[in-house]
Amino acid sequence: MYQRDGNHTMITIKFDEKGLVPVIAQDKTTKDVLMLAYANKEAVDLTRSTGYAHYYSRSRNKLWKKGEESGHLQKVHEILVDCDEDAVIYLVDQLTAACHTGYRSCFYRRLDGTVSGERMFDPDEVYKKSE
Amino acid sequence: MYQRDGNHTMITIKFDEKGLVPVIAQDKTTKDVLMLAYANKEAVDLTRSTGYAHYYSRSRNKLWKKGEESGHLQKVHEILVDCDEDAVIYLVDQLTAACHTGYRSCFYRRLDGTVSGERMFDPDEVYKKSE
Repeated sequence: MYQRDGNHTMITIKFDEKGLVPVIAQDKTTKDVLMLAYANKEAVDLTRSTGYAHYYSRSRNKLWKKGEESGHLQKVHEILVDCDEDAVIYLVDQLTAACHTGYRSCFYRRLDGTVSGERMFDPDEVYKKSE
Repeated sequence: MYQRDGNHTMITIKFDEKGLVPVIAQDKTTKDVLMLAYANKEAVDLTRSTGYAHYYSRSRNKLWKKGEESGHLQKVHEILVDCDEDAVIYLVDQLTAACHTGYRSCFYRRLDGTVSGERMFDPDEVYKKSE
């Protein structure tokens, strides 16, 4: 996954003051943008070492393996970095859907509220409520 | 560009504590992710009213029309919002290239430093140094 030919230097990602970098998850095949999330260094390192997308949840303040609850894992084929080295793309194979709402992509609505995305599952079936 | 059919409600974007929202500029045709930048409310409003991508520069602390210096404008066809309403996609027609380095996309390198993108112009020719 990370071939080195000796002529290139690993890019050092610039994490922000909270230690995070925004990550765009993009479907490797359809090129749809699936989600925007954040990663800390540990999440990027785990993504590289395991080949599966890891993020850092800002609301739960914890490292997060995408799909750990739903099973909707993201297999990461490549990591791209932008010119400023402060934003990242994970090029992924997405199992089922990226969004917890059941849509394939989190970006399933236009600004006017109309729906442009495709729903892949019923979240009530996937994220079981505790009884 | 923003048809309303009466059954949908305009989404209210959640700007962060700095008044910004991350914006992914995606090529409408190739679906390449071109750049990740930030917008404040004024930038989103101007994008909607003019049809051209506007952002807010965090380094220069000012509103910024993409291409105002280089001429590499982004005509915005659609604005998508994510499930949490705190991230946005501009679906654009990109003139020439998005990146100030001359590459079509700002995400022209892999994490290992190898180049995957295509260079479209020489930045020294486009961003003239003052003499």
